[in-house]
Amino acid sequence: MSNDVPQMNTAPLNALPRGFRFAATNCGLRKAPNLDLGIIIGDEEVSAAGVFTQNLVRAAPVVLCDNHLRKAGARMRAVIANSRNANCATGEAGMAAAQATAHAVAREIGCDAEQIFVCSTGVIGVPLKTERILNAIPALVKAADQTPEGFGGFTRAIMTTDTRPKWAASRCTLSGKTVRLLGCAKGAGMIHPNMATMLAYIVTDVAIAPALLQRALTSAVGSTFNSITVDGDTSTNDTALALASGAAGNRRIAKLDSDYRRFAASLENVCHSLALQIVADGEGATRVIEIEVRGAANDDAARQIASTIAASSLVKTMFAGADPNWGRILAAAGRSGAKFDPRKTDIYLAGVLTCRGGVEHEFSETNVHKRMLRDFVPVRVELGRGRGSARVWTCDFTSDYVHINAAYRT
Amino acid sequence: MSNDVPQMNTAPLNALPRGFRFAATNCGLRKAPNLDLGIIIGDEEVSAAGVFTQNLVRAAPVVLCDNHLRKAGARMRAVIANSRNANCATGEAGMAAAQATAHAVAREIGCDAEQIFVCSTGVIGVPLKTERILNAIPALVKAADQTPEGFGGFTRAIMTTDTRPKWAASRCTLSGKTVRLLGCAKGAGMIHPNMATMLAYIVTDVAIAPALLQRALTSAVGSTFNSITVDGDTSTNDTALALASGAAGNRRIAKLDSDYRRFAASLENVCHSLALQIVADGEGATRVIEIEVRGAANDDAARQIASTIAASSLVKTMFAGADPNWGRILAAAGRSGAKFDPRKTDIYLAGVLTCRGGVEHEFSETNVHKRMLRDFVPVRVELGRGRGSARVWTCDFTSDYVHINAAYRT
Repeated sequence: MSNDVPQMNTAPLNALPRGFRFAATNCGLRKAPNLDLGIIIGDEEVSAAGVFTQNLVRAAPVVLCDNHLRKAGARMRAVIANSRNANCATGEAGMAAAQATAHAVAREIGCDAEQIFVCSTGVIGVPLKTERILNAIPALVKAADQTPEGFGGFTRAIMTTDTRPKWAASRCTLSGKTVRLLGCAKGAGMIHPNMATMLAYIVTDVAIAPALLQRALTSAVGSTFNSITVDGDTSTNDTALALASGAAGNRRIAKLDSDYRRFAASLENVCHSLALQIVADGEGATRVIEIEVRGAANDDAARQIASTIAASSLVKTMFAGADPNWGRILAAAGRSGAKFDPRKTDIYLAGVLTCRGGVEHEFSETNVHKRMLRDFVPVRVELGRGRGSARVWTCDFTSDYVHINAAYRT
Repeated sequence: MSNDVPQMNTAPLNALPRGFRFAATNCGLRKAPNLDLGIIIGDEEVSAAGVFTQNLVRAAPVVLCDNHLRKAGARMRAVIANSRNANCATGEAGMAAAQATAHAVAREIGCDAEQIFVCSTGVIGVPLKTERILNAIPALVKAADQTPEGFGGFTRAIMTTDTRPKWAASRCTLSGKTVRLLGCAKGAGMIHPNMATMLAYIVTDVAIAPALLQRALTSAVGSTFNSITVDGDTSTNDTALALASGAAGNRRIAKLDSDYRRFAASLENVCHSLALQIVADGEGATRVIEIEVRGAANDDAARQIASTIAASSLVKTMFAGADPNWGRILAAAGRSGAKFDPRKTDIYLAGVLTCRGGVEHEFSETNVHKRMLRDFVPVRVELGRGRGSARVWTCDFTSDYVHINAAYRT
């Protein structure tokens, strides 16, 4: 099992789950030769699971995916995704565009339109140039193959402000068979999901009942993608999909047994790696910050405190400057809404005790400053109250974030 | 009545409410000759009202002020305030420091310690150099006088990252007598109150029952200071105090009559002006953004939506670049948690209809861009559902914010 951040440009051949083909192209939404349209096709019908944005404003493709999953979740055939335009706040024309895309893919593959997922990411409120997508679909479907290059193209076609493609692979052995999981994602930081949009796709050759695939995905998303989406933030297009072909030939997972738990752990590993890659590629980010809260009254309180700290502009700018100003962490915890006793609170910054019982504990500023300059900086807040704990991840907040977002469209 | 943003460096003599003296000094917390300690003294006992932070982590002086207000709210004598150090997360030593300060002032004035308010603002978690404050108190109390210079000194002594002092004056006529109100505040933007801390003081010569003064202050704070503290953010030191000397000689306000309403309106005007000055001086800010939400199911829903829009980093960076990307406003509204129908939503950006019924309404990008470059940019979101409305104010989010906060202490 491997869930390290990948160093290679794309997954090796032996990481590809059986039963899927991939392709990508430039269809004219972005400047050629930048890829802007990708497809994942199941050789046969596949089981699917999905988690969608909780934003009240949902892009047309999100509505379509949700509908298709309900109707045909046990027999999906493909995912098509475009970047550059989110097809959100585009009214009836936007929904018609998503439906036309699904129909065009279904026609080429030879299946029902409801067996197709359609995803979009990019700018909100601009009409989608649907013709360009429709024109590209026949060649795209024909080009799809079971190769690392095909998968690699897909991972790049969904990028917006991402500086690099993100993928992660895992495997497990179930009833003597090797089960492969391969995921990819786009998203350039969790503090602005309403623009960048997070999209994640995990394909696997496991044989599993759709309801259990959904359960495993929902659980994995909670502790990974939803632990970087701080502050309750949700975008208009956020979508995570899992597709299972069953081609591994394992005894089909049909109940919450040890096979289920092993598969679910592998799925969570893939999602965890993708989530951390998203944070590390946060717009303008130079380092990843892990906020761990322990000793809270319960897990919900711990999560509330950790998320408030992780979302604080003051905390995030402090990490940009590697300034060991632990008071900002305590103050953010204090406004989280969760109860705790500041007088019992300890704060470890980059591994060093800086606050004990709510007051400063003597430490070397130079030492902590140096540790805060690293790529990964852990923060641990001990509340000394109960057994509740949570971990969330954020990135530092640099002036490059502002430069990227002050003129995104222009 | 005047509640314009002041152009003068300090208030004119005839704006000073009768019955108060003011002074400020450098006591050595900041580099001389920067003022870092200020005092307001009532000639006699004054009625007081206060609103304090809702942060679970409360600085020692906030706890002290809250206690003293409960014990002696009808007979307070003075407020002493220091900048540079928030005296927060400083444990028992911090509380002892605040108490020692109150005692020292009381000794000089000749009253009880519980008749003194003590306020601090600045860095969290660093022990306060109390001796420097105590040493300065005798001369400070002696220097206090009824002059614009004394008041002006106080407004500067409480500044931290503020680039300019903030004050506002108002007056009203009650039972044939002229009542004066004069306020000042510090705070450099609402998006980071856990560092900058908002402090506000309003002195008035009105005669009023303490309970009604408290009622008027609580109401005014809700629609002004709490409408720039977006996102439920509260700092460890936020404090707003009102002091009423009664020296105007009006018939004492003792019930919710027209005199009360006239006074409350004047108080709200002062607070409104101070609140907008705080936003305009937001760290790195170049313009003020007003977010007005109308047609919500109720006022609470409108406030929730307006606050979420105002707190969004994407929306705020968009205003830094004057980019008419209305989709970000719609997306922020969508994640606020309040219910509305995006298909009925209109968005006016800088006075121009840019989104109608949830989709783009044709507009001139050049024209809106130019309007967004102004000092004050209004945004109106019409939800077309009910009669709920709210207004909040925010500022744009520039890279200077990051520069200021990445190395606040160093």
